[in-house]
Amino acid sequence: MERSKTLAALFIHTLVLVAPLLIMATDPDPLQDFCVADLNGVPSVNGYPCKPPSSAGDEFLFSSRATMGGDPMSNPNGSNVTELDVTHWPGVNTLGVSMNRVDFAPGGTNPPHIHPRATEVGLVTRGELLVGIIGSLESGNRYYSKVLKAGETFVIPRGLMHFQFNVGKEEASMVVSFNSQNPGIVFVPLTMFGSSPPIPTPVLAKALRVDAQVVDLIKSKFTGGY
Amino acid sequence: MERSKTLAALFIHTLVLVAPLLIMATDPDPLQDFCVADLNGVPSVNGYPCKPPSSAGDEFLFSSRATMGGDPMSNPNGSNVTELDVTHWPGVNTLGVSMNRVDFAPGGTNPPHIHPRATEVGLVTRGELLVGIIGSLESGNRYYSKVLKAGETFVIPRGLMHFQFNVGKEEASMVVSFNSQNPGIVFVPLTMFGSSPPIPTPVLAKALRVDAQVVDLIKSKFTGGY
Amino acid sequence: MERSKTLAALFIHTLVLVAPLLIMATDPDPLQDFCVADLNGVPSVNGYPCKPPSSAGDEFLFSSRATMGGDPMSNPNGSNVTELDVTHWPGVNTLGVSMNRVDFAPGGTNPPHIHPRATEVGLVTRGELLVGIIGSLESGNRYYSKVLKAGETFVIPRGLMHFQFNVGKEEASMVVSFNSQNPGIVFVPLTMFGSSPPIPTPVLAKALRVDAQVVDLIKSKFTGGY
Amino acid sequence: MERSKTLAALFIHTLVLVAPLLIMATDPDPLQDFCVADLNGVPSVNGYPCKPPSSAGDEFLFSSRATMGGDPMSNPNGSNVTELDVTHWPGVNTLGVSMNRVDFAPGGTNPPHIHPRATEVGLVTRGELLVGIIGSLESGNRYYSKVLKAGETFVIPRGLMHFQFNVGKEEASMVVSFNSQNPGIVFVPLTMFGSSPPIPTPVLAKALRVDAQVVDLIKSKFTGGY
Amino acid sequence: MERSKTLAALFIHTLVLVAPLLIMATDPDPLQDFCVADLNGVPSVNGYPCKPPSSAGDEFLFSSRATMGGDPMSNPNGSNVTELDVTHWPGVNTLGVSMNRVDFAPGGTNPPHIHPRATEVGLVTRGELLVGIIGSLESGNRYYSKVLKAGETFVIPRGLMHFQFNVGKEEASMVVSFNSQNPGIVFVPLTMFGSSPPIPTPVLAKALRVDAQVVDLIKSKFTGGY
Amino acid sequence: MERSKTLAALFIHTLVLVAPLLIMATDPDPLQDFCVADLNGVPSVNGYPCKPPSSAGDEFLFSSRATMGGDPMSNPNGSNVTELDVTHWPGVNTLGVSMNRVDFAPGGTNPPHIHPRATEVGLVTRGELLVGIIGSLESGNRYYSKVLKAGETFVIPRGLMHFQFNVGKEEASMVVSFNSQNPGIVFVPLTMFGSSPPIPTPVLAKALRVDAQVVDLIKSKFTGGY
Repeated sequence: MERSKTLAALFIHTLVLVAPLLIMATDPDPLQDFCVADLNGVPSVNGYPCKPPSSAGDEFLFSSRATMGGDPMSNPNGSNVTELDVTHWPGVNTLGVSMNRVDFAPGGTNPPHIHPRATEVGLVTRGELLVGIIGSLESGNRYYSKVLKAGETFVIPRGLMHFQFNVGKEEASMVVSFNSQNPGIVFVPLTMFGSSPPIPTPVLAKALRVDAQVVDLIKSKFTGGY
Repeated sequence: MERSKTLAALFIHTLVLVAPLLIMATDPDPLQDFCVADLNGVPSVNGYPCKPPSSAGDEFLFSSRATMGGDPMSNPNGSNVTELDVTHWPGVNTLGVSMNRVDFAPGGTNPPHIHPRATEVGLVTRGELLVGIIGSLESGNRYYSKVLKAGETFVIPRGLMHFQFNVGKEEASMVVSFNSQNPGIVFVPLTMFGSSPPIPTPVLAKALRVDAQVVDLIKSKFTGGY
Repeated sequence: MERSKTLAALFIHTLVLVAPLLIMATDPDPLQDFCVADLNGVPSVNGYPCKPPSSAGDEFLFSSRATMGGDPMSNPNGSNVTELDVTHWPGVNTLGVSMNRVDFAPGGTNPPHIHPRATEVGLVTRGELLVGIIGSLESGNRYYSKVLKAGETFVIPRGLMHFQFNVGKEEASMVVSFNSQNPGIVFVPLTMFGSSPPIPTPVLAKALRVDAQVVDLIKSKFTGGY
Repeated sequence: MERSKTLAALFIHTLVLVAPLLIMATDPDPLQDFCVADLNGVPSVNGYPCKPPSSAGDEFLFSSRATMGGDPMSNPNGSNVTELDVTHWPGVNTLGVSMNRVDFAPGGTNPPHIHPRATEVGLVTRGELLVGIIGSLESGNRYYSKVLKAGETFVIPRGLMHFQFNVGKEEASMVVSFNSQNPGIVFVPLTMFGSSPPIPTPVLAKALRVDAQVVDLIKSKFTGGY
Repeated sequence: MERSKTLAALFIHTLVLVAPLLIMATDPDPLQDFCVADLNGVPSVNGYPCKPPSSAGDEFLFSSRATMGGDPMSNPNGSNVTELDVTHWPGVNTLGVSMNRVDFAPGGTNPPHIHPRATEVGLVTRGELLVGIIGSLESGNRYYSKVLKAGETFVIPRGLMHFQFNVGKEEASMVVSFNSQNPGIVFVPLTMFGSSPPIPTPVLAKALRVDAQVVDLIKSKFTGGY
Repeated sequence: MERSKTLAALFIHTLVLVAPLLIMATDPDPLQDFCVADLNGVPSVNGYPCKPPSSAGDEFLFSSRATMGGDPMSNPNGSNVTELDVTHWPGVNTLGVSMNRVDFAPGGTNPPHIHPRATEVGLVTRGELLVGIIGSLESGNRYYSKVLKAGETFVIPRGLMHFQFNVGKEEASMVVSFNSQNPGIVFVPLTMFGSSPPIPTPVLAKALRVDAQVVDLIKSKFTGGY
């Protein structure tokens, strides 16, 4: 009994050692044709181990996940993101690419955000989206924007703040691609006002040049998260 | 008169010196927010100089080029590629991303090809496409394939041979993205049988294990190019 | 007369062609020992040409710029940044490193910001600074923080939002290093509320989940810039 | 009994989890002096784990594998490849380099192929080889070639199609190097006509602009593989 | 008994397989926000596994290790290095940055050395240091140097030989940063004269153009190591 | 007259501006098939501009430079290096590879040196060479060595000190390849004792733990350079 507990402990210990390893890889050129993430392997964010090549069937290079979008009214932003990063599409593991589908209710927004690890290129697939991109300090924080219709494309340089806003009367959708299998996302309002634990109010008041009340008002809107 | 000729010559010489320079850059992380290629600058393939940031308007981060496809019947492949690489979309310069739209007639194909400098991720936007990808020697040249419908996606690992084939009765289209602003393309049949000058027939006969006649027959199909 | 005008025009045209080129380079491994930026060459942000190696004296590998900080009371943030990126320290050109010195008045902040192109590592050199870092969405927007004293160090993963805040009663200072010669900076409040032109108020109201008045109040604080 | 079976299962499960991991690494700059692949560790293609540094003797940085070539008459190509990639020379693991020796019978060829993950540089060590390289579409599929003798060298840009052909009356040999420890190889005839399972004949007939019979004829030559 | 030994052996075998793996990762862009090395995991140089994100507390992004230097008189160089690389500061794992603090006795030196995997940027924090950097052969082995005081900074291009020497009458200190989490260090005198086993004397005599006695004299000074 | 002087000055000024630019590029993945350096363009070390693609003939991908070695007795090392880096083989520009041929007299040495920007892989082509490689501090400065004969190969991890020494009675030769088109070379004895200007003797005496006389003796051997 004792022994089997010890052995189970050893096994778990081994897993604990191994699991975090899975998120150490980086994404320049691949070192093999592909490395399909094994989703049954270890439940961590982007570090699933590769399936043995022999067990990777035809399906891994393909995905049907983007055929149906989600409900854009399910959150206060009025938009829904269907992710096709390495967690949701194991086949892109190590390949330095990923995708997302985003659906927008009328008036919905994919709020100002930043991808810390990728440049993005996108295609509007239906509706009309205002796409806004703000340059860094060197540009004088210049705001670039355009209303795009279906078939039009845009590019978001790595690390710059940007947003989409549905200016049409119908739903709108877009499909975007990244040059990383795990680009990450920093939603600016949520990060500033809804972090866990919260950023101290005096820090934000000083940074925003307003009273604590204004900060606390906005904070109160993000208690429910994204 | 003489002097102004000399000066013009000096200027041209300078341009000649400078122009080729423009194709020396590489595409890992960018070193600035963006660097819009100036298409009026120097007529080389992917090496246009950057526009001064101040003269780069809102438009450079956006493109309408993919809204309309080309005529897929205009060549023997039954497919048409609308390119959105750095030559056709200057805004992606230095950013490590680009796109293409491809339209297919029924029975048309984007014939077996390889992108020497990028992994590709794609979205079928209408119709039904057979997507085929062949692994390298280590995989035993394994052939992976699936018929994809609108909304479905695929990934092509860097440097692997692949093709699309319209198996539907209607036109089909797809939009693909690359993790390079100039992925390049090596169309396999055209490269083997339609290079300029041609690869000697005995080389191809030995490589394909057939008579010279078979090689010459195929070569005769590619005198007109892509 | 006419001709010399033409020639001057040609020369200027050449410069115009060449100047933007200077910001095309990227920053992985260098291709030579060093490449000192020639600040007299072309007045662009990070793209100065290299000085000929023979004219680069001993001084280029060294800088005295960080010996004296600036006045932290000169702006509403109560902090002052002395930059040692490629524009201010030409010797780091192509080498994939740069530095900054930041001085803080009591209560002063280096407001929430993001470096789009670098990881940062920093050393507090005097005083006491609260350093806050917020993880991306995958982390549940987790807020990591600590009050650091002189001699203590911190690391900011590439692309994550972070800030420093002087919690002491005296001035505080820090020196930070980046793994890019031009890391860039996106000050979050300035980018959201002080861009040029401004992000439309309805976009920010939707994103922040508040009334237009709140957005306009904050915007009014950033008309003067950083 | 039951328990030990369970434990064995746990162990095997652990191995299954760990083994695929071994092929996830990428090959830019190394992170340590070296990491010798442990060939007794896990029988996968390029993912052997590192030996503990202490057990890596003098031998790992050296190899005698290229001293003797193989029999170039052992296959229809009339050439034999002796590989020195990470699978065959564990010491190059993580170092971003590898080598091959190739021997050619008179009239033998290293048929048109592509390395998906590396540029190649080569040295002819005996005999006379026709080396042919075909540029990508941008070059108009330009064919570059030269007959090289012992001591002469060539470079093959990443991802471009190329071949060697022994035009002499004697055996010929070359040694090539890659800037990846696992460059991969896509033999074009084998990939098009001998994949497993085969590419559908109608696809190849359309792509090659010939009848199905021609395609099937060539396919029949590659049932035996490389 | 037997069985539990077998199981222990299996476990140890697993660890042996896994442990070396930990030093395979490379350091371009990270693939996640962070990956804190678990120092209790496996006692190897730079390959500790990541802690599960949930168990990584606030502290990992911060370090107090540089607040106190070591005793510069504890070795013949008269200098002491306090390392903040991945082994000593687990939080920098995968992030491509690290730091060192070095303290110098009067007349002490950080002897000529090379970092094989990083460019270095440094800040003198007290005292006066002569910093010397020697260019590669292309530069004619040019020697660049300057005496720096507190607050002054220097940059050392990747792979170039350099040293610091305390020319003041007081102790001196500096803090340096690298663009790798494991830059490595090749101390030139120790490497030439104190390797294990030693480089054969005839090799060094030929290389240094002196008698074996001179070589052996210097070798005798490095029997005690660094 | 005045004007033409001015114009010549403008032109020269332009060249001076442009020339240094040519050494700014870096060498990860190429952005085009190739970029042949134009050796008639600008006389700088590794920064020749690209020839226009149309004027690059078949020859650029090939080189005959390594067919004949140099005289190994022409310098005190008893070895001769025939370089095939970007300066000597323009075709490798931007491709991340280069080569060298080295010939050795009996007893000759390629003295301890370091390539700051590349890993090296080499082939002994005749004779018998002792190849020695010394690990960094983490390895305890471990010395790895082997006597290699024709056909044997070796790998030198990036940035590590290494040497070759002809232990045979005949001349020996090797051909090496690098994963950079401009790997650079730091000859250790020449860099320490023959820099220009010299490293101060007290620095070297402290570093080597010997008297100034010993240092000055060795310095006297390197007044003539490499």
